[in-house]
Amino acid sequence: MTMPSSRTVSIDELRQFCLDVLTKLGADMEYAAVVADAMATTDSWGVFTHGSKLLAAYVRRIKAGGIRVDCLPTVIRSGPSWSIVDGCSVMGHVAGSFAMEQAIRQARQTGIAMVSVRQSNHFGAAGYFAWLAAREGLLGIAMANDIPSVAAPGSLKAVTGSNPLAYAIPTADGTDPILLDMAISTVAGGKVYAAHQRGESIPETWINGPDGMPTTDSSLYPAGASLQPMSGAKGYGIALLIESLSAIVSGAAIMWQVSSCVDGDLTVPTNHGASFIAIDVAQMQSREEYQRRVQYMIDEVHQAPTIRGVQRLMLPGEREWAHRHRALREGIVLPPDVVGQLATLGFA
Amino acid sequence: MTMPSSRTVSIDELRQFCLDVLTKLGADMEYAAVVADAMATTDSWGVFTHGSKLLAAYVRRIKAGGIRVDCLPTVIRSGPSWSIVDGCSVMGHVAGSFAMEQAIRQARQTGIAMVSVRQSNHFGAAGYFAWLAAREGLLGIAMANDIPSVAAPGSLKAVTGSNPLAYAIPTADGTDPILLDMAISTVAGGKVYAAHQRGESIPETWINGPDGMPTTDSSLYPAGASLQPMSGAKGYGIALLIESLSAIVSGAAIMWQVSSCVDGDLTVPTNHGASFIAIDVAQMQSREEYQRRVQYMIDEVHQAPTIRGVQRLMLPGEREWAHRHRALREGIVLPPDVVGQLATLGFA
Repeated sequence: MTMPSSRTVSIDELRQFCLDVLTKLGADMEYAAVVADAMATTDSWGVFTHGSKLLAAYVRRIKAGGIRVDCLPTVIRSGPSWSIVDGCSVMGHVAGSFAMEQAIRQARQTGIAMVSVRQSNHFGAAGYFAWLAAREGLLGIAMANDIPSVAAPGSLKAVTGSNPLAYAIPTADGTDPILLDMAISTVAGGKVYAAHQRGESIPETWINGPDGMPTTDSSLYPAGASLQPMSGAKGYGIALLIESLSAIVSGAAIMWQVSSCVDGDLTVPTNHGASFIAIDVAQMQSREEYQRRVQYMIDEVHQAPTIRGVQRLMLPGEREWAHRHRALREGIVLPPDVVGQLATLGFA
Repeated sequence: MTMPSSRTVSIDELRQFCLDVLTKLGADMEYAAVVADAMATTDSWGVFTHGSKLLAAYVRRIKAGGIRVDCLPTVIRSGPSWSIVDGCSVMGHVAGSFAMEQAIRQARQTGIAMVSVRQSNHFGAAGYFAWLAAREGLLGIAMANDIPSVAAPGSLKAVTGSNPLAYAIPTADGTDPILLDMAISTVAGGKVYAAHQRGESIPETWINGPDGMPTTDSSLYPAGASLQPMSGAKGYGIALLIESLSAIVSGAAIMWQVSSCVDGDLTVPTNHGASFIAIDVAQMQSREEYQRRVQYMIDEVHQAPTIRGVQRLMLPGEREWAHRHRALREGIVLPPDVVGQLATLGFA
């Protein structure tokens, strides 16, 4: 087997490929378009771990029945500033987009709204949903739970998921929002796995071994190890807040009730939970005043004195937006591992 | 000068002392009672860095005119799920309590509400305000900005405040909420200062020196050093979200516009910003269902396997609630530094 090489595609080309894969599986156009846009956008940011690379794994689960393509999410309960969405085990991207759009609509009426989702799935990059709000001028926050992979202080094994948290803060019209997308572990599991593949040891702040103690042995992950929570009790604490808003409020699976999206029984729903908050910041003062004040914060960051070798401080997301602007001009350079995954779906 | 020793007081005694100090300065009963309750509650949790120890510093600022005791906060703008509060430079405890009570009232109507405050001050422990919501059965989140003390990745000096974030998740009736109160720095500045007083060096993950690089020299803080953000870019990123919700939305001072509460010109308002979110979780499913699901999460944590030497995993806040229950029975053992500060106000 030859190792695939990297491959340059336009964002539209990649979006179309993802769309075709899903419609051939029976997804209707609306469903497939949402997923395709989420994946192409995520790859355009250079966040290749969470974009189209995962499509093959989702497809396996669709074929096995654990992910449905024959239904769409619905609002099952709501009040003025909140809704609960049943994702009916569609792809998490579809449930997440539906929920954030609902949150945006409600926030436009009341100022802030939270929409929580049950029966969702792994949803790719949390930042995509936060961005859906920011591109409409609202501040967006997205979060989800996942099957446990992260330790808590004193735990022998994983206790919480990597529970992603993302936000997008709108800035001046036509400029890129401030965009943060993070997991509550010190590093993503993919980074440990990559070190293992390169045969490298890792810093002792990344994972705990089978005895629950820090280890530098990257080969132990994931089977015998857990990721360390960022800043110990703080990361663990934030994980529990995300678990509460994503799963307890919505009625989704909690902690070890969540099924893995890629391993295990592919025929059962994973029942991931997620939560989406939209804040209509321009309602709270004039849009001009809001934008002037955000710009003040941006300028303070960009004008802050730096250490030797650093030209300018970066805002969260600046690197991703630069990657996207280049991708819009020159296409996305898909790395070999992504090309390899897409090839299993007929990408050539 | 003799070093004061620790001193045991009842919670009520401490509350009364704080109340008397403030009413003698001209604060009305409502104002003083809020501050006194916040301080006595914070000390009852064992969070002595943010309780009555700070009263003497606040009093100096009140006497100089930088904190007002002759007005009360007001709602200056609002929509169905949000309000902006002008704190008119009262103590942050008063502005924060007023704002969280407003958030609770609005969340009862709409499900979730956010109230942001301008012209506030240092507000003590963020956890107190989150708890105000949880004791009413709502999930509470509190945050604030502060004068910069924390570096950003690549910065030479401090860029953001330690920007505290707290939450309280209500549990079964009559039981203690899950309570997290954290700063976005790896450790609190007080811990660095304490190490310096003991003549100890510190881990190189705590502060950056005057060249912006990690140092183990505790004597450099605060004048020539900045605290490191927890998990680098993640802590910095969360700090910017807190800055946005606390200061940009409300119209408060942003980053270096914020004045120190204890140093500098005591006659000027600090114009701290803060934000308070209340979520009426029992509206989204039945209260029984909510409580059953929270209990499931609690049980998973308490039953999780532990490393050698750890009997049981702790939930955020468990240590603080144990401290409070003991304080209710046996009084609060105020440490010498707190007794010393209170003594300057006539505590004997």
